[in-house]
Amino acid sequence: MSKPIYDRVALIGLGLIASSMFWAMKRANLAGKVTGYARSQETRDTARRIGLTDRVCDSAAEAVEGADLVVLAVPVGAMGPVAEAIAPHLKPGATVTDVGSVKRHVIDAVAPHIPEGVHFIPAHPLAGTEHSGPESGFAELFENRWCLIVPLPGTPDTEIARLRALWEAMGSNVDEMDPDHHDLVLAVTSHAPHLIAYTMVGVADDLRRVTDSEVIKYSAAGFRDFTRIAASDPTMWRDVFLTNKDATLEILGRFTEELFALQRAIRQGDGQMLFDYFTRTRAIRRGIIEAGQDTAAPDFGRVKPRE
Amino acid sequence: MSKPIYDRVALIGLGLIASSMFWAMKRANLAGKVTGYARSQETRDTARRIGLTDRVCDSAAEAVEGADLVVLAVPVGAMGPVAEAIAPHLKPGATVTDVGSVKRHVIDAVAPHIPEGVHFIPAHPLAGTEHSGPESGFAELFENRWCLIVPLPGTPDTEIARLRALWEAMGSNVDEMDPDHHDLVLAVTSHAPHLIAYTMVGVADDLRRVTDSEVIKYSAAGFRDFTRIAASDPTMWRDVFLTNKDATLEILGRFTEELFALQRAIRQGDGQMLFDYFTRTRAIRRGIIEAGQDTAAPDFGRVKPRE
Repeated sequence: MSKPIYDRVALIGLGLIASSMFWAMKRANLAGKVTGYARSQETRDTARRIGLTDRVCDSAAEAVEGADLVVLAVPVGAMGPVAEAIAPHLKPGATVTDVGSVKRHVIDAVAPHIPEGVHFIPAHPLAGTEHSGPESGFAELFENRWCLIVPLPGTPDTEIARLRALWEAMGSNVDEMDPDHHDLVLAVTSHAPHLIAYTMVGVADDLRRVTDSEVIKYSAAGFRDFTRIAASDPTMWRDVFLTNKDATLEILGRFTEELFALQRAIRQGDGQMLFDYFTRTRAIRRGIIEAGQDTAAPDFGRVKPRE
Repeated sequence: MSKPIYDRVALIGLGLIASSMFWAMKRANLAGKVTGYARSQETRDTARRIGLTDRVCDSAAEAVEGADLVVLAVPVGAMGPVAEAIAPHLKPGATVTDVGSVKRHVIDAVAPHIPEGVHFIPAHPLAGTEHSGPESGFAELFENRWCLIVPLPGTPDTEIARLRALWEAMGSNVDEMDPDHHDLVLAVTSHAPHLIAYTMVGVADDLRRVTDSEVIKYSAAGFRDFTRIAASDPTMWRDVFLTNKDATLEILGRFTEELFALQRAIRQGDGQMLFDYFTRTRAIRRGIIEAGQDTAAPDFGRVKPRE
């Protein structure tokens, strides 16, 4: 087996992403020894029970002691306080990275706490499922998914290359991006879609003239896809919206504008406008399938087509 | 093998739903002989090549000749003209049904053409994929999906029961509903979600500051689920919105109201409101999984969790 990329890795936060990283690192021997810490006693107990990390610690400070790579895998709003707590215990020459869905806010919250001689390299793996918690992780989560690395000026190329090598060895494709562009791109591809899905599910739940059981029974007609997204971790998503406020609100503004144009077309009976619009959006789907970012199987492969 | 439920079935329109019905009927010997007709020569040629229906006819009139069950499986906007064209050729005692996603409009457009002595029983199978056309059908499409039957006053119970038996034999669960309630329920569970998905995909495609290739590469973070829905057949969906205008606009109005409330919470930094909202929407997802209307596997089973 080849030499690990990092001798000692500390995972702070033990949810879907951190646990998937652990199994992916173990599978390919990418880390010598992995420590873990989670704020909740229940999560630490679960982690110990299922063997998630080589040693589960009762404090973040203990977990990062001697670590060559520290991964902040907590909700975006908790990144700053966690960075402050671990800062005095970081090993000189170590790399701190994160997996947060927002980058500008994380940089502003974390970078000031990073001591001289420690490298902070923000990153964001674009991978996940609607499940959360220490038992939701699996080694294949990052395969063929993108991980965006958002390096700060002055970070040594060798350390960026090492973190990139880790993500690639876990199966990811890696791109570099600057933080503000990252936050705008994610507002489009992730944050606005999530808010919209949450909203649609909320509307369905709220409507007095259609019962909950009708919404649930008849969801296969389209609605259920929204409910998957709207089942994602509430704390994580609250923090995403609060910390990527400007880009999210900008995209939602564009969305509302566009929705009003389509509503007007419906009201006025402008079939041509609707047809042209719906034809154009089909092409984007084809692009995603051709780029290997989704399956061409009908209904995400939920059902099996005739052989 | 048991006796077919209908001796002669005519499928008018040979897209996803009709072709799936054909394979489902063949598999379980539910129809003695099935004729088919599609407006486009290309679709008829394809149908002949792949053996879709026992006899592909060059006119709808010819296809319905002698049929005990005629299934209108064309876009909602085409239902009226098709009904008018076939009316003189319908066999006395036959049943005409449809599979349209809107019921009030279909009833208004079709019922006036149905001759005395022929039964018209509107129906709507809540099943589909993002694929369309004669080659997209498969026998399992309706399994464990709901089919809503919307009987008109005065229809003999025996004929309703026979149509119900067909849908059940194709794997569906069957409920009865009145047309206006159907159109409202579907506006919530299907029509509004589709329009919203189309809109979000349109926004992403339109945004000058984020490139198409970025949208496509990084779509796994949530956006790609919207693109599946937004890849559905443009003609079918244009007609749905034009013919279920009032209910769709009502739900979209509620949606916008709710979206504005969430946007305000983001702008004002009201984390508690966001957290509570996102916690509530999780419960709906659980209900759908418990009702057997979606898989609990992460990401619709697109990825395999650790064993």
